[in-house]
Amino acid sequence: MELWFTERHSPASGITLRCKRTIYSGRSDIQRIDVIETEEFGRMLLLDGLVMATERDEFVYHEMMVHPAMNLTPASRKRILVVGGGDGGTVRELVKYPCLDNVVLCEIDPLVVEISRRYLPQLSSALADNDRVEIVFRDGQAYVRERKGEFDRIFIDSSDPIGAAEVLFSPGFYKDCYFALNNEGVLVVQSESPIYHLHIMKQVKEGLSRAGFTNIRFYTAPVPTYPGGYWSWAMGFKGIYERPSPDIVLPLEEMEKLGFFTPEVLMSSFVLPAFVKRALG
Amino acid sequence: MELWFTERHSPASGITLRCKRTIYSGRSDIQRIDVIETEEFGRMLLLDGLVMATERDEFVYHEMMVHPAMNLTPASRKRILVVGGGDGGTVRELVKYPCLDNVVLCEIDPLVVEISRRYLPQLSSALADNDRVEIVFRDGQAYVRERKGEFDRIFIDSSDPIGAAEVLFSPGFYKDCYFALNNEGVLVVQSESPIYHLHIMKQVKEGLSRAGFTNIRFYTAPVPTYPGGYWSWAMGFKGIYERPSPDIVLPLEEMEKLGFFTPEVLMSSFVLPAFVKRALG
Repeated sequence: MELWFTERHSPASGITLRCKRTIYSGRSDIQRIDVIETEEFGRMLLLDGLVMATERDEFVYHEMMVHPAMNLTPASRKRILVVGGGDGGTVRELVKYPCLDNVVLCEIDPLVVEISRRYLPQLSSALADNDRVEIVFRDGQAYVRERKGEFDRIFIDSSDPIGAAEVLFSPGFYKDCYFALNNEGVLVVQSESPIYHLHIMKQVKEGLSRAGFTNIRFYTAPVPTYPGGYWSWAMGFKGIYERPSPDIVLPLEEMEKLGFFTPEVLMSSFVLPAFVKRALG
Repeated sequence: MELWFTERHSPASGITLRCKRTIYSGRSDIQRIDVIETEEFGRMLLLDGLVMATERDEFVYHEMMVHPAMNLTPASRKRILVVGGGDGGTVRELVKYPCLDNVVLCEIDPLVVEISRRYLPQLSSALADNDRVEIVFRDGQAYVRERKGEFDRIFIDSSDPIGAAEVLFSPGFYKDCYFALNNEGVLVVQSESPIYHLHIMKQVKEGLSRAGFTNIRFYTAPVPTYPGGYWSWAMGFKGIYERPSPDIVLPLEEMEKLGFFTPEVLMSSFVLPAFVKRALG
């Protein structure tokens, strides 16, 4: 028997992966959760049937979520908030920074963390026994609304803007993030695929702008198992920066172990293709 | 009835596209040729069942094949050779240069040109009635071997290194290209996917080096319908350049109509992710 998993990236296109077996299938109050063993990309986490991460290419997504904002601008990077990201990949990258005092992971669904801890150790390694990591199981918006000027960086590591994560793409939530950041804070938002979701990138830009972020920049990287194989992130700066400048604080021994990010990638990833630049105005 | 086309990028992974209809299916002496109408990516050209180009994303591949090498280093860019590329996309980008005197398209399979002219006008527009374009239906290696110091730029716009195109990835062919270029010439080779074909990129580097190119640089761009959604090209410089510098000669009115390439993309595309950099030494 051959078992193929197919995710449609639009009604008429998708990716298809041959699978060895289903490792876990279950349902929380929030969503359906599956872990599947694929032949080509290793273990794969699915939320409501959509690919969140595969062992083989998650390094691109998680490195590019974290390291650009952590190595920019000479402000403090001690207190960090991650909203979503219950698989642990983003936190795993963050704990590589000695300058970090504390990271709060605010994940709405405890089962995602539990399943990742049990079946995806490559992703969740930093979620257990790390006294700099605090896990809060709450609705991200409610949590962020209570915090004022507390964080140096906030990372929105959400799933797609349908269902549970929709609120994490709203201007109101971005405004709450704005106030939860200190005056030199930076917000990073995963902002979907430039191939399939340019309209979402535009909404993110508009939303960040309405929330008060004066300087908004997008960057991109190739993530093979995501729609279009090409992903984007938005960065909103609360401080006034004419042009974000590198301030590399990741220790060299950690930098040398990364799969995607380099100091050169940091700046080149902000260079957008003509069609993206044009669409974002 | 739903008709889905699936291309396997490895035995256990692939892309799948819903199709409206088959526009053409035929066979030349060289290969099987199909043109399919997909819903998401428009018309699609297949050679021996593999995706060569789709109307929706071919701009990335063809712009990134041509414009980086045409806007680098202050040497002449008058006489150009394209090997392969019978669909016409590469030539279409080249004729945007007023500085170009003549481009020779050397394609082994006349049927590819015929089918592209008939069914893919978006790609083949420059193949008809252009007195700067000369089409030669010959084996690329045999043609290149006869030329000495004639070309300012050579573009190897081949299919994958199996079957007819295998020879176009051989060190012997790269050596022939070396001698067919003038002393300041540049060779551009499509060098497959960093996700699935790192070993081919290594072979290309090794082959170009053995052929005599002293400075070899790779660059990348996202091409959604190609394996891994992420593609690479190698550039071999015959002249001595410490570091290739931009020399933008594409007229501004043409630049403004491009979908992917910009002067900033030119330099950022040479910045390679850590895993690619490491693999290529």
